[in-house]
Amino acid sequence: MHKLLSLVPLLFLAGAATLATAGEWQPLPEKPPEPVDNPTTPAKVVLGKMLYFDPRFTATGTGSCNSCHNLMLGGDDSRALSLGVHGKLGARSAPTVWNAAFHSVQFWDGRAPTLEEQARGPVTNPLEMAMTSWEDVMARLNAIPEYRRLFEAAFSPDNPITADNAVKAIAAFERTLITPNSPYDKYARGNQQAMSEPQIRGLNTFAQVGCVNCHSGPAFNGPQLPLGTGFFMKFPTYDNAELETKYGFKKDMGRYEVTKKEEDKHMFRVPTLRNVAMTAPYFHNGGVKTLDEAIRVMAKVQLNKDLSPQQVDDIFAFLTALTGEFPKIEIPRLPVAPGKSFNYQ
Amino acid sequence: MHKLLSLVPLLFLAGAATLATAGEWQPLPEKPPEPVDNPTTPAKVVLGKMLYFDPRFTATGTGSCNSCHNLMLGGDDSRALSLGVHGKLGARSAPTVWNAAFHSVQFWDGRAPTLEEQARGPVTNPLEMAMTSWEDVMARLNAIPEYRRLFEAAFSPDNPITADNAVKAIAAFERTLITPNSPYDKYARGNQQAMSEPQIRGLNTFAQVGCVNCHSGPAFNGPQLPLGTGFFMKFPTYDNAELETKYGFKKDMGRYEVTKKEEDKHMFRVPTLRNVAMTAPYFHNGGVKTLDEAIRVMAKVQLNKDLSPQQVDDIFAFLTALTGEFPKIEIPRLPVAPGKSFNYQ
Repeated sequence: MHKLLSLVPLLFLAGAATLATAGEWQPLPEKPPEPVDNPTTPAKVVLGKMLYFDPRFTATGTGSCNSCHNLMLGGDDSRALSLGVHGKLGARSAPTVWNAAFHSVQFWDGRAPTLEEQARGPVTNPLEMAMTSWEDVMARLNAIPEYRRLFEAAFSPDNPITADNAVKAIAAFERTLITPNSPYDKYARGNQQAMSEPQIRGLNTFAQVGCVNCHSGPAFNGPQLPLGTGFFMKFPTYDNAELETKYGFKKDMGRYEVTKKEEDKHMFRVPTLRNVAMTAPYFHNGGVKTLDEAIRVMAKVQLNKDLSPQQVDDIFAFLTALTGEFPKIEIPRLPVAPGKSFNYQ
Repeated sequence: MHKLLSLVPLLFLAGAATLATAGEWQPLPEKPPEPVDNPTTPAKVVLGKMLYFDPRFTATGTGSCNSCHNLMLGGDDSRALSLGVHGKLGARSAPTVWNAAFHSVQFWDGRAPTLEEQARGPVTNPLEMAMTSWEDVMARLNAIPEYRRLFEAAFSPDNPITADNAVKAIAAFERTLITPNSPYDKYARGNQQAMSEPQIRGLNTFAQVGCVNCHSGPAFNGPQLPLGTGFFMKFPTYDNAELETKYGFKKDMGRYEVTKKEEDKHMFRVPTLRNVAMTAPYFHNGGVKTLDEAIRVMAKVQLNKDLSPQQVDDIFAFLTALTGEFPKIEIPRLPVAPGKSFNYQ
């Protein structure tokens, strides 16, 4: 794979405008991939949206998926590290949910192969939503007549309210959370006017400098691999004592924490760059507060390059062209068990 | 006022169905009152909706007005006591924001005369959103170009981003948060089929027992008084040792905490009953978990009456007829300062 990818930047040297016309710059597909055992249906999306926003998935009743993956913002929580219930601080920065469906693995360390498996994690994580068990979540939902009806409509009427079905519905909704038609997408489809001059310069710089080696493909998160197969890179690749002192990137062992394999030390999934101007602060520990600094840091520790201020400005401009069109979402009415309350912590 | 009100239950004895036709049972008005210095405008409502959902009003960046006054649910947080940032526990249960515009004072103790003044409070309350000052909030909003544009559009272009304007916009949005056309409203406008038999029995019981003495008017929160003039009642009115041991209502001195006047001890604003089936748990301390128990408790400590199970069931049924139609709300896209982050705690 590395061999193949190393050809990409050379191709781009031929000139981005030409390549855009030739289809080398790929717009976001209209639909993300979905696992064969969970085809997206309208009934699942309706239910999944409700579950996504439902605070009854937290021990305290105070947060939902949307708390850390805010659909009103960049699909994250704009924090360095997320805050779970009871003020608990998480270990990593929340990745964006926008276009997460285009990732072939989930979490910074890729430990979940699908959005379904990702959704399972935070609910019972004591640093996040802190439910004692998924059974407790299901007991809450089962107490709400309207949810029983909606699960039956989305799944089999036999035993419909299960954790498996809940994460399937949430994942189905998340597969609708894509942001096409960014200025970049329009440009990639041949509209030369869709990006500004600085943005086009930035696209060329992005390619020439080598950012695109890893941030390739329509979601700028690497090649499109089968669901469950991750695209990981070592971060930082080049040691830099000054930046390490400042940002402490290496305190986190990355994928090694999951696999305990030596070769997985400091390996992280390559994240999408779509809407990246909306998702400050940056990196797995949220250590870098601004996008211009993130661009400088990446060039230094991943490519061993010092960018000029002009290059940084141009790449910044290009990255703002990756902000897409967000779907209109009506807030769900969450059903209740009339006149009853839950035992929230 | 007490004299006037005491006539009301006698009138109701004549029969609710007749009275509904005669207009004694009032449907929710189409528009709530608004203060003369803050007429509702579309530009304010657009901005106010964004501010209402904006987590940048909290020290940690993790909560918004909607966290404790959730528009996807009953306009509250479904908790006994609210949780602020850093896991801090509030002193009282969050009242619903739905139809709050029909309250002539805000908060359980009526310490704010308007929605504008209410909105000012939680932002800098260390147990709630915990901002150091409103200046800090304004500094954050000022860093976001799109907010500067929206404040200018809603207010004067000179010095538009102020705390005064922010709370005006939030209040203007909140005045759109009303839930008309409940089964009760349709019944009150003459549609005898709009409520079920138990609901109609419950309405009559509600009147005959005396609930309507205080829970009168279109919002079931007392007579419509000028903005700033509260309608307060002593809670509990009748001491009951058993219930007090169980629920501890009297630990909270109510309006006395604000005025330090002897006559304000245990005085609380009479809350609306609209959508009350969605706002468990109940009372200022959220001490009662279910609506049927809340009905029994109220009859005992406010009216010194023991209701039969049938009466409780009927009043419960009637109260579910106060669940109205909720406006469709599209989630706002919250603007950002591209590539920049805030110093969240």
